[in-house]
Amino acid sequence: MAMSWHMMVEFEPPLVACVVSEANFSFRALRSTGEAVIAIPSRGLADKVVQVGNCSGNDVDKFARFGLTPLPSRQISPPLIRECFCNLECRVKDTSLVKRYNLFILEVVKAWIDPAQRNPKTLHHRGYGSFVVDGATIKLKSKMK
Amino acid sequence: MAMSWHMMVEFEPPLVACVVSEANFSFRALRSTGEAVIAIPSRGLADKVVQVGNCSGNDVDKFARFGLTPLPSRQISPPLIRECFCNLECRVKDTSLVKRYNLFILEVVKAWIDPAQRNPKTLHHRGYGSFVVDGATIKLKSKMK
Repeated sequence: MAMSWHMMVEFEPPLVACVVSEANFSFRALRSTGEAVIAIPSRGLADKVVQVGNCSGNDVDKFARFGLTPLPSRQISPPLIRECFCNLECRVKDTSLVKRYNLFILEVVKAWIDPAQRNPKTLHHRGYGSFVVDGATIKLKSKMK
Repeated sequence: MAMSWHMMVEFEPPLVACVVSEANFSFRALRSTGEAVIAIPSRGLADKVVQVGNCSGNDVDKFARFGLTPLPSRQISPPLIRECFCNLECRVKDTSLVKRYNLFILEVVKAWIDPAQRNPKTLHHRGYGSFVVDGATIKLKSKMK
């Protein structure tokens, strides 16, 4: 699936929250397996991201249809996506807000990056097919992680 | 406070989740008042964002110290920030994950934009003083909100 709504929750252990509609195939997969890969695409994959988000795993093998390459994970069963510059193997950690908000808390149990993709530009979904691509990086003096 | 960790949770009613460290003055304010303004700064405010994030409301009147202008909210008590291009008046809606993760669910009860700020560039925190600024906007054909 293509996912917009997610955030960091904790550094250690690394936790990520995300919202997955209960109408989605991915919702049932997440519920039944308790595992997921968060794969982060860069600018070059934008067309595929939208196409992946506009069809359902009920009907389609998305890896095959969109020319994406599954690679084996180390800690969990779902595959990584070869074309994404970062893949996070995750286990569902907390489902207490799933019923009310479809909100899952995931623990990242292994992280992969593709060293061949240098300084990838990420995509920020604005809705209705509109995305902002990363621009300049600025560095300021801060005490914060 | 300066906040990095937040996400959309629902369109209708508009819900936003965020993580606020229990070490922060803002945590206690959020807990005790049940209200908050999420004010979205653009690129020009980056230095102030970092400075605001590197001191505490325990010690400092941040509006005065950083030359920010409070404006009255309509639905809640905390003020808007005049210099931010968007201000969201929020009420705490759900605290059930506060104890475990410092995770609040807020409902946006009123939204303001500054029409004088056109196409503002937002900031994405990468940690340790590094931020990515919005780059190009791309538009793709999508069925999704």
